[in-house]
Amino acid sequence: MIKGLFFDISGVLLDGPNLIAGADKAIELVKQKNLPIRLLTNTSQQTCDTLLGQLNNARLGVTKDEIYTAPLAAKDYIQTHDLRPYCLIHPNLVPEFAALDQNNPNAVVIGDAADDFNYQTLNKAFRLCIEGAPLIAIGHNKYFKKSGEFFLDAGPFVEAIEYACDIKAIITGKPSLDFFNQVLLSVELKADEVALIGDDVYGDIYGAQSAGMDSRLVRTGKYREGDENKVSPTAIVVDDVLQAVEDLIA
Amino acid sequence: MIKGLFFDISGVLLDGPNLIAGADKAIELVKQKNLPIRLLTNTSQQTCDTLLGQLNNARLGVTKDEIYTAPLAAKDYIQTHDLRPYCLIHPNLVPEFAALDQNNPNAVVIGDAADDFNYQTLNKAFRLCIEGAPLIAIGHNKYFKKSGEFFLDAGPFVEAIEYACDIKAIITGKPSLDFFNQVLLSVELKADEVALIGDDVYGDIYGAQSAGMDSRLVRTGKYREGDENKVSPTAIVVDDVLQAVEDLIA
Repeated sequence: MIKGLFFDISGVLLDGPNLIAGADKAIELVKQKNLPIRLLTNTSQQTCDTLLGQLNNARLGVTKDEIYTAPLAAKDYIQTHDLRPYCLIHPNLVPEFAALDQNNPNAVVIGDAADDFNYQTLNKAFRLCIEGAPLIAIGHNKYFKKSGEFFLDAGPFVEAIEYACDIKAIITGKPSLDFFNQVLLSVELKADEVALIGDDVYGDIYGAQSAGMDSRLVRTGKYREGDENKVSPTAIVVDDVLQAVEDLIA
Repeated sequence: MIKGLFFDISGVLLDGPNLIAGADKAIELVKQKNLPIRLLTNTSQQTCDTLLGQLNNARLGVTKDEIYTAPLAAKDYIQTHDLRPYCLIHPNLVPEFAALDQNNPNAVVIGDAADDFNYQTLNKAFRLCIEGAPLIAIGHNKYFKKSGEFFLDAGPFVEAIEYACDIKAIITGKPSLDFFNQVLLSVELKADEVALIGDDVYGDIYGAQSAGMDSRLVRTGKYREGDENKVSPTAIVVDDVLQAVEDLIA
């Protein structure tokens, strides 16, 4: 019995800034049944406010507290543990962490900092971590493609600091179990009462399976023929988010 | 029967720019017996010419072809495999690679590039490696200390590119077996005919043991009480390089 639903955003609800057909009706259906929802994304460059603006522009009726991002999970971790972070993150994300005390840091938050990755900033992160500061990583992706070119994502820089200090980072975002547990806590539901709808067979479906949640893989977004066979048990595939919701809660 | 001797430089023959007592006599003894020598170092910032100048200033009678460094091993690899490297290395090392064709690169040489590590240079290395260019690493150290401050060494950046591209770097320098085999080849001796004298129980003694060479650990340089017990079999410890040479070839 599904009592709550988690949605990936990009490729499931939105295609770039545009609504994916049926996504508005899908969200409406869940809200009519009064089931809690969370929109989960591994964005390394967008604040919750920016995302909410995008979702509102696409006329998806969601509120800010229904959005849960990898950067927000990092922020939650920092606040829960009463830490003062040195943030090596994308300039667009700076507002998300602006309210935190970042003086005399005793933790490192590392994300897709792009041009802010350099020998000075990486040495600063390294010197904190070798003294015992926890390393909190916003995602762990290897690389991304932009305008046809490859760029290093946060993952390789996280690996660099981990190797230098002989430590393991706390990784926020899908498919991290800690991340899902944090979201489950926020809706006060158990894993087997929730389903996740996504287009990424690893981050979404493998993640949901590992956490003990039900899941549906949509054929929109980054889905490629045969993706469903990359996890065990095989993912349940549906055409789009509307069909997923009808399948799960109708 | 020892037919050739390998020496670490820093902490064995030199302390900074200064001769370690007895080092001149040690080299002299070996040369009197007409045994080939090689001075091996993992320097990531010095060319063979710079090192030779230092050794000459300390009045150690060695020639340029008796010096073998990690950067030189990288250069040899590049030349043997007829590659065109993109060199992400320390500015001081640039002359060592200047004679190589570096246009339209199809290999990456990565060392302790210090301030030259940034998002642009690392993306350039990454884009070459993800297209199949081999990654040749000058050493794999985690960090070093300079003027009381910690700095990231080449190792973490090598790990970053390895992770991003799912590849393994070719690592030059001690204790790499390939490195020792290359030096053994240059003196036309087998491993069991050579001994290595060093102050680093891992890079020197563990390396020598893995390659099948005899070795002596000196109490000068970075030696710390008990270092000999960090390898198996236990390292043979001597006071200094002169005692090591007398022990090995007297």
